[in-house]
Formats: sequence, structure tokens, C-alpha cells
Amino acid sequence: MYRSHTCGELRAAHIGKTVTLAGWVQTVRKFGSSMTFVDLRDRYGITQLLFGEELAKELAENPPGREFVLQVKGIVAERSNKNVHIPTGDIEIKVESFTILNKSITPPFTIQDDTDGGDDLRMRYRYLDLRRSAIKKNLELRYAVNRAARNFLHENNFMDLETPFLIKSTPEGARDFVVPSRMNPGQFYALPQSPQTFKQLLMVSGYDRYYQVVKCFRDEDLRADRQPEFTQIDCEMSFVEQEDILEMFEGMIKYIFKTVKGIHYTEKVERMSWEQAMWDYGNDKPDIRFGMKIANLKTPSSVYPELRSQSLKKPVVSKFLEVSPFPVFDQAETVLAIAVPGCGEYTRKQLDELTEWVKRPQIGMKGLAYIKCNADGTCKSSFDKFYDNEGLKEIADHAGAVSGDLVFILAGYEERTRKAMSELRLEMGKRLGLRKETEFRLLWVLDFPLFEYAEEDNRWVARHHPFTSPKPSDIEVMIGNDPAIEDPARYLEHPYARIKANAYDMVLNGNEIGGGSIRIYQRELQEKMFAALGMSPEEAQHKFGFLLGAFEYGAPPHGGIAFGFDRLCAILGGSESIRDFIAFPKNNSGRDVMLDAPGTIDDKQLQELELRLGLQ
Amino acid sequence: MYRSHTCGELRAAHIGKTVTLAGWVQTVRKFGSSMTFVDLRDRYGITQLLFGEELAKELAENPPGREFVLQVKGIVAERSNKNVHIPTGDIEIKVESFTILNKSITPPFTIQDDTDGGDDLRMRYRYLDLRRSAIKKNLELRYAVNRAARNFLHENNFMDLETPFLIKSTPEGARDFVVPSRMNPGQFYALPQSPQTFKQLLMVSGYDRYYQVVKCFRDEDLRADRQPEFTQIDCEMSFVEQEDILEMFEGMIKYIFKTVKGIHYTEKVERMSWEQAMWDYGNDKPDIRFGMKIANLKTPSSVYPELRSQSLKKPVVSKFLEVSPFPVFDQAETVLAIAVPGCGEYTRKQLDELTEWVKRPQIGMKGLAYIKCNADGTCKSSFDKFYDNEGLKEIADHAGAVSGDLVFILAGYEERTRKAMSELRLEMGKRLGLRKETEFRLLWVLDFPLFEYAEEDNRWVARHHPFTSPKPSDIEVMIGNDPAIEDPARYLEHPYARIKANAYDMVLNGNEIGGGSIRIYQRELQEKMFAALGMSPEEAQHKFGFLLGAFEYGAPPHGGIAFGFDRLCAILGGSESIRDFIAFPKNNSGRDVMLDAPGTIDDKQLQELELRLGLQ
Repeated sequence: MYRSHTCGELRAAHIGKTVTLAGWVQTVRKFGSSMTFVDLRDRYGITQLLFGEELAKELAENPPGREFVLQVKGIVAERSNKNVHIPTGDIEIKVESFTILNKSITPPFTIQDDTDGGDDLRMRYRYLDLRRSAIKKNLELRYAVNRAARNFLHENNFMDLETPFLIKSTPEGARDFVVPSRMNPGQFYALPQSPQTFKQLLMVSGYDRYYQVVKCFRDEDLRADRQPEFTQIDCEMSFVEQEDILEMFEGMIKYIFKTVKGIHYTEKVERMSWEQAMWDYGNDKPDIRFGMKIANLKTPSSVYPELRSQSLKKPVVSKFLEVSPFPVFDQAETVLAIAVPGCGEYTRKQLDELTEWVKRPQIGMKGLAYIKCNADGTCKSSFDKFYDNEGLKEIADHAGAVSGDLVFILAGYEERTRKAMSELRLEMGKRLGLRKETEFRLLWVLDFPLFEYAEEDNRWVARHHPFTSPKPSDIEVMIGNDPAIEDPARYLEHPYARIKANAYDMVLNGNEIGGGSIRIYQRELQEKMFAALGMSPEEAQHKFGFLLGAFEYGAPPHGGIAFGFDRLCAILGGSESIRDFIAFPKNNSGRDVMLDAPGTIDDKQLQELELRLGLQ
Repeated sequence: MYRSHTCGELRAAHIGKTVTLAGWVQTVRKFGSSMTFVDLRDRYGITQLLFGEELAKELAENPPGREFVLQVKGIVAERSNKNVHIPTGDIEIKVESFTILNKSITPPFTIQDDTDGGDDLRMRYRYLDLRRSAIKKNLELRYAVNRAARNFLHENNFMDLETPFLIKSTPEGARDFVVPSRMNPGQFYALPQSPQTFKQLLMVSGYDRYYQVVKCFRDEDLRADRQPEFTQIDCEMSFVEQEDILEMFEGMIKYIFKTVKGIHYTEKVERMSWEQAMWDYGNDKPDIRFGMKIANLKTPSSVYPELRSQSLKKPVVSKFLEVSPFPVFDQAETVLAIAVPGCGEYTRKQLDELTEWVKRPQIGMKGLAYIKCNADGTCKSSFDKFYDNEGLKEIADHAGAVSGDLVFILAGYEERTRKAMSELRLEMGKRLGLRKETEFRLLWVLDFPLFEYAEEDNRWVARHHPFTSPKPSDIEVMIGNDPAIEDPARYLEHPYARIKANAYDMVLNGNEIGGGSIRIYQRELQEKMFAALGMSPEEAQHKFGFLLGAFEYGAPPHGGIAFGFDRLCAILGGSESIRDFIAFPKNNSGRDVMLDAPGTIDDKQLQELELRLGLQ
């Protein structure tokens, strides 16, 4: 061993001991010709080294520079000038001898929390970037979450069972990465988008409680913060209903909070139907750290089909804008409002800037109407000529505003308007400091629609995936009806439009961190599902024959969930970006710029695979 | 939840309780018209159910068959006829009501330890095969080993750090599986053969102690018991020498023995040089559960180059067969012997059978000579006319035989003969019951040659991999000499032929379960290694520029090891085959017969990847 102790280990109690340390030179400070201080860094901490006069000559001949790998032998001594900010701050090492184990040229950026390295440079020299303590903390947190999840699941009788990576391509939804088979020329394996069917087979096999922390692969066009390979905490249980899953995994996340963050999340996790989330927050993963719920000022009509199909049951908050003297409201399909607390004194400039904000192409609105609720009870709006004070006040009341608040109103096509209002709400939450990185609010979103309508093919698509069961009460609706849609214009009247999924998403601070469902376990129902998705019986048999077969030999009721491990870690680490929680991430073009991958391969490799490059 | 208890949980203490169980019907036994016994099975055990007269009608209408999924509610009662073989054998459930949760058609083979299913059938219906308790025990053992390894490594400050699966193809040795990149047409990712370079980069990044239980991929022609995807317990440490690694991982394996098998392996793990292993056992992974060491009766000469290059240092056991009156010995390059204890009375038939055994093409010897050492001190051999009793006794003595032993002698070309003798030794060990499944003997094999000679290219190849360091004393030999081999006929005189690797293999019962090395961490030495392997500086830079670059920024001394997780589990489970320790294995053609993968993919997928099928 090159060391007797680590650089984070020595304390006052070690004073007088002879020790050997090894690590990286963080800083070198000279005091005159006789004394040199070196901060030596390793994974565990930083220890100050003192090189005295007797080593001055040797040091001058072999000066250790930044990031050199240094081994020193010396005596632990009390520091005259203690550093209370680091655990080793009481001591220093009086160096007796040293060896430079390896040299370093000057790094392309500084190895510090606030590095001067840009994103590209950091990614190219990721091995240096990983030395920065900010990134190190992220990966330590990642490991702690991994370990906590495993321990919790182990204690609850779950088994880690490995599923294969070289499987069969059955593209549903996202695109598969494929792997040409040399031994079976012209044939391909696929990399798993998730171990979904395997974990279900394990339930059929009686393994009862399965988990895996597992890499998954999706060949999608990468948005910011998506990776072609990502990690899931993947779980499945037999003989359970939705309630059992919610309780178990609520428990897991709380255990992670406690173990990793020291947070005792004792309150029950809130639950919300998908419908309510859409009505109140404009999206299916609401950030409930703050209120500012959306007021629906008009009955939604045509554009947001799933919501509309459910809207029958939900009383619309207000109908008084069904007809409005203000043509923008009057002609709009949807009019939505939020009351922003305490912003009633926003200036013209602030309002103009926010108007520009909603008009950006990413948001896509034509304008932003507002009502300022003054302290004296009067209102001031951007559409004063159409409403008197009474009328404005009525709208503001409907939006839940009180004195001093600012009401924002967006009007337009329903889907876009709802999305825009959701974004505006989040933006205002951020600006007002209501989305605290250190506050964590969990939420279960439930009762999703099972199907979405695909206009281009005039058929149903699975909102979650084809293995999700309908709610028990909807099974008969599904079995008993023909999935075919006779009149595309009236698809909403098809019984399938109202079927609810036995599915659940876990939302943390406005991010979906996990999702799952109770699965179909009956061959007949699974076949019906495949048929609803437009698969012929032959196609279903070809793609999923193994699963349909398995359902004939005593498949138990089962369900599960998968957590997005990268995202969960990022949120727990107080970051919006998953990149810095992955040791070797890829960029937005799916490239590893450090490795320079992907790259070309030899002709010999192509020949062995019986493949040729280029379009047909 | 569909159950209040599992099928392995109820005991006498539960008598009188009302419980709900769910599981699979293992057997149905009827007693007259009024009583039916059902054994209900789940992952945790088997519980006997008793259906009385009051349920007879209902049962007749809905008879639960084998492998049906059944839910029952009933009262725990004492069994009149206790079963001491199962933990639940004291009780049974007096069923009050039942629900058939799912039906099963008749399985294609019986779900029992000794199944009637052939290999193909079991693989096609793997989800049923996995229900067999033999396979379940294997996977439980696998999980226990996984968990024990993780716990040990965690306690020793190792961190699980995930490395990427979509990397760059740098074929060295085995063939890469490649993954075409849609976003970078004409370019490919490769799946990792191991995370080797990444774990080394993590050491450069200062992560110090890394581990991962990770899938690796090799596109090799599959021998029996090889899988295209396999799992490693992959580890790396910084600031260590060989001794530190041996101690750490000896500790890990012992911890696994203790935790998983209840075996306290307290003795120090034996160590043996590669050379000694080859001399004494004829292979580099000796099974040391039994003796029967090989006696070398003649100086090896030409065929086994690595051994020959080292043979200079090793005194040959005997030279007295350099010249022999028996032409077979006299003309053979190598003559090897083993003394098989207590087999001196083998019959003609037994000896003939063993002679046929060594003549099989897999062994490839021309014949088998023997000496029987009789109790009266006389010898009887298959070459009596060339030696008198004294001469035979001298040979038998050299082989270490005593009265009652049988000496086997093989003669021929060195490499083949040594391999054949190694096989014969193992075969005799097996026949004599000396290779007990329940006995575990660990061994470190050390001091491998760093290079092998590749005749076709007249260059060196890395015996381990290109990142293995030479022994410290050989570094200068490597740096100071030109790797080029001027005269192929005299390659053995090249200084590189004698360089030893700083590498180690862990052997368990004659199987290599792990291997690793201290790594090169200096750019100059790594470049020299690439040059020795015939890579131009440009090629080295193109393939491994990221690693060479990383070595310039302060790379610490480091080393590591990887354990073959599948094999380790198989050996601990007392099996020679890894297949039954993998949930979803592939067959010898690399196919998953359950999924029917690999398979064809859509033209659309090929077009998106800009690939065409067929040879150029």
C-alpha cells in the first residue's frame, strides 16, 4: 500500500504519529525559501503538508506541480493556523521524505468547484472534471441512493434478478438500438428499452418481488437532459393491487430521503387524479411545492381530447366567460387564469417582459392579459375597456386572487393554452422563490386514461405501455367492446375513450421520478390490448408470443414501477440536469466526446456481420 | 394485497388464525368424495390446503388443476399427519373459500426438481423452468453472492460507479458487439467487453475504490458454457501493490463463503507461480483439492514456448528418461507421469477403457503407458520388455507412487501431452471422488508471462490485456528494449520473452473465477506496450488517446480484478454449468429460444440506420 492513511482521516489525536499519504497536489504555497505548504487531495479530503528547509533543495530539483501524484512520509503535527472549514484542519504533516509518483501537465481547466472549463472542455476531459468536488459529491449521492434503494428492497424481500441485454426488437413507442448478430447474419438483437416483459415473466415464474438497478436504452432524438442510455430502479411485485404498490414505493422513497438526505418525510404522499392535475396545474406532473392553481374560466371544448373526454364529470370552475365582451376571451376555446401572490405592483416593464416571455416560440401565446388587484380593492387590467371594476373583480375572485395579487390570463386553443399556463405558473413560482431546492414534495398522480387516440392511423395507442391493465371496473368495457373506431370524428364516444389505466406516476417537485402500473395477466385481455393498438393476431404472436404463452400457464396478478434513477439523483442533488450525476454521459448528439464514440468500424467487422453501409 | 401470509410462513403458532394465501397448485389429491388436499406453492414454500365436504360441489364445478393460481381464505389448523420435511409441515389450511385467480393449461414438462423436460424445451419455456426449485435455489444463491460482494466492498470503501454501455469499438483479442448509430450514420458504438479503461479513468479521477456488478459482452464463437453476455464483479483500487489486491479480494471471497455458504475459510489462500502450476498440474488453473502432481520425466524442449522460456530457472524433476530403451519415451519430446493412489489393481478392462479415453480426439494421445505398483514391491507395466523391475520402480518412485498405486505415463509433443496429462489427472480425480462439490480450495496463480508470441504477425500479444503492468523489476527491460523481433526463429531470446506480468488469477476448484493485474499508469510505458502489440503511434492514439491523455494528468498507481460472476455462482452452487445460474440464458448459437432472438428488423429500421444487409 502506498499510504498508511487517507487525506481525510488525520485528526489531532494522530499528532506525533509517522504516516504515509498519497494523493494529488491541489495547491502549492511557498513562504520564503525555506517553507512550502502543499494541500494534498484524495477522495476523502485534503491534508496540509509542510516541507521544511531540509527538503528545500530536493523540492527545488523536483518541484511538485498542481495535480502531480505525490507520496509523502512525515509526522502529524499540530497546525498553528487551524482551518475550521475542513475536518483535517487541526493538523499538518511535517514531511520527512517524498516521492513524485506521477507528474501532470497543466490541466485544461481548474479542478475547482467553480471551474473555468466550459461544457465541451469538461466533457472531453471528463476524467479531470470528475476530480472536482461538486461532481464527486453528485456521484457519492448517486451511490448512496443506489445503496439505500437496494437495502430497502432487500429488507422487503425483493430479489435482484438480472435480465438480458441482447433481446428482440419489438418497437412500440420509442426506437430500439439494435445489435447485428454475426452468428445469425441478417438478424439483430435489440437493447432493452426496459426489462418490462422479463420482469413480468419473472412474476409468472413465481419470483414474487423483483428489482434491478439497470441500464436501459432508447434511440430517441435527444432533447437536453436525455441520454441514449439511462438507469432505472426497476421493480415488480406479485399478488398486489395498486394500493400495495403505492405504499411500498412511497416507503422506499421516504427511506431514501431519510438515509441519503437526513429528511424525515413522515406525511402521507398526496394523491391526485390525472384529471385534477390537468385541470389545476395544466400538466400531469405538478409541482405542488406552491399553490397558484389554474382557474378554468370557460368550458374546454375540442382540442384536448383526453381531458375533454373526462371533463363531463368535472364541474367547470366558471362558465361566466362563455360569452365575453372582450373578443379575445369570447373567441378563445379556453381561458385560464392564475393569481400570482403579492405581485400586484408589477411595473409596466415587468409585465412587458413577461408578455414577451409567453410570446416566445417555446410558449407560443399571442399575448398575456393581467389584472392587478390593488390594496384599495380596485382592479387594473390590460383589458379595462371591456370590463368595469366589478367585472374585473369577479374574474380575479374566480382566479382566487386577494388584494395585492396579480392575475394572469391566457386565452387560446386549449392544449397550447393549458401548457403555456403551466409553464407560466412554474416560471412565476421560480421567480418568487417558491420552488426551493431544499424542499421536497412528493405526489402520486393516478387514474390516467389507458388510451390516446392516434389520428393518423385512426387507432388507439397505449398511453403507458401495452402491458398496463385497465382499472378493474373497466376490464369488462375493454373485453366487451370492439376496439375499432368506426367514425374518426366521433372517437370520443367510443367506450375505449373513457377507460382508465390502473397506473400511477410518482412526481417529485414537478418531475416524474417513477411510473408504473398493475399489469394485464390474462391472455384474453392482453390480446384485446394488442388488437386495440392495431396489431394483427399474427403480429402480436410474432412479437409477444412468449408473453401470451406465459399467461396460459398460471400468471399471477402483478404490478410494478420503474424509477428514473438519473433524474431522481439529480433532483435529490438539487439540480435540474442529469448529466452531472452520470460518470460518463453523452452529449446531445449521443456522442461521448472523451472517447470520440460512436466511430467507424473496420471493413472486416462489417464483413463478418454481413452488413454494408449506406442507403438502399 | 391478495394474501395475508406467504406459503412458507405459517407454523403451529398460527393455529386458529384466519389467513389468506395465494400461489400455484403443486398437487391435488382427493380422498373420497369429501376431502381434497392441495399443495399450494409460492417462492417461499409450500402449504397444504384442505377442502372439506362443504366445498366439494364448488370444487367440482371449478376444479383447480396443476399450476393454477389459487387464492384461498381459511383457518390454520394442526395437521394430523405432520410433514417434518417442510417448515410448514405442522399445519394445514382448512379452506373456507377460494378463488381461481388464473388457470393453467398443462405444462410441457413437470415443474419438479427432476423434470422430464429436455434442455430445448426448458429453454423455450424458461418462465416455467424458473419455477423449479432447483433453478430458484440457484438464482437465490446468485442474489446472495451479489449482495455479499456488494456489502463487503461497501464496508471497504468501494463505490459502485456506473460505466457506459455504448462505447467505442477497439477490438483487442475478442470481437466487439457493435451498435449502429442512427444519429451518426455509418458510425457504430460497441458494447463493452469489460469496463477496463473506464475503471482506470475513474482511478485517474481519484475515485480510489470502484466496483460494479456489470454486464459485459463478447462476440465469440460460443463453446459450451460461454454466453455472449455475462456478468462481472469488476473492481479497481488506487495506491496499491499486488499484495494489497490479493489480501482485499481473498477477503471478499472468504466473506462470500461465510455469508452465502456458511463456510469459514480461515486458512490463507495458497499461491503458486504460473510456472509451477504448468509444471505440476499441466494447466494454469489447477484443482488443488487433490494431489496427483505431474512428474516431468524429461526436459521439455520445443513446443511449449512460454513454459520453455521460463524452464531455464526450474530444475527438471528427472532427466533419467532423456535416453530410454523404450522407443516411445526415447523419441518423445515430453514424458509425464502421475501416480494414481490405490488403483494398482485396475483390471485390463479398466486400463483399456482409460487408454481409449486418452485416444479420443479431444485428448489426442496415441496411447497410455502404466505401471502397477504391487503390494509386494513388484511392478507390472505396459512396457515390461524394456525395463526390469528396478527400472520400473525408479520411474514409479519419480512419479511419487507407493505400493498399491497406479502410475500413468503419457509421452509426445509437449503442449499436447501436458494438456492431456492435466485432463487425465482431473478425470482420475473425478473418478476417485477427490473433486468434492462441497469442498472449496482457493488458489492465487501469479507471475504470468506478460507476452505471448504471435507467429503469424511476428509480434507480441498481451497475455492478459494491454493495460497490465510488467513486474516492477521488468519495467526497465520493457522500456529499455525495442519490442521488434528481428529473427522469428529466435524470439525466445528476445528480452520481452522473459518479462513477467504483475498479474494474478484466482482459481477455485480448478476454475478461474477472477483475474486482474496492477496496471500501467505511465504514458511512456503504455505507449511501449501498444508498440509491442504492433500498434502504430497513430493507431494507439486513435483507439486509446483518451487513456494516454489521462495518464498525463497525474495518474495514480492502481490495479484491479474482475470476477466471473456467473461461473463463481455456478461453482458455489456445485455445478459446472453457468446456464442454470442465469435467469434468461442464450443457447450455444447465441439465441434466446424463448424470445426467438435475434430476429429480423423492419426495413424502416435499416433505412434509419443507413444500413443494408448482405456481403459486399
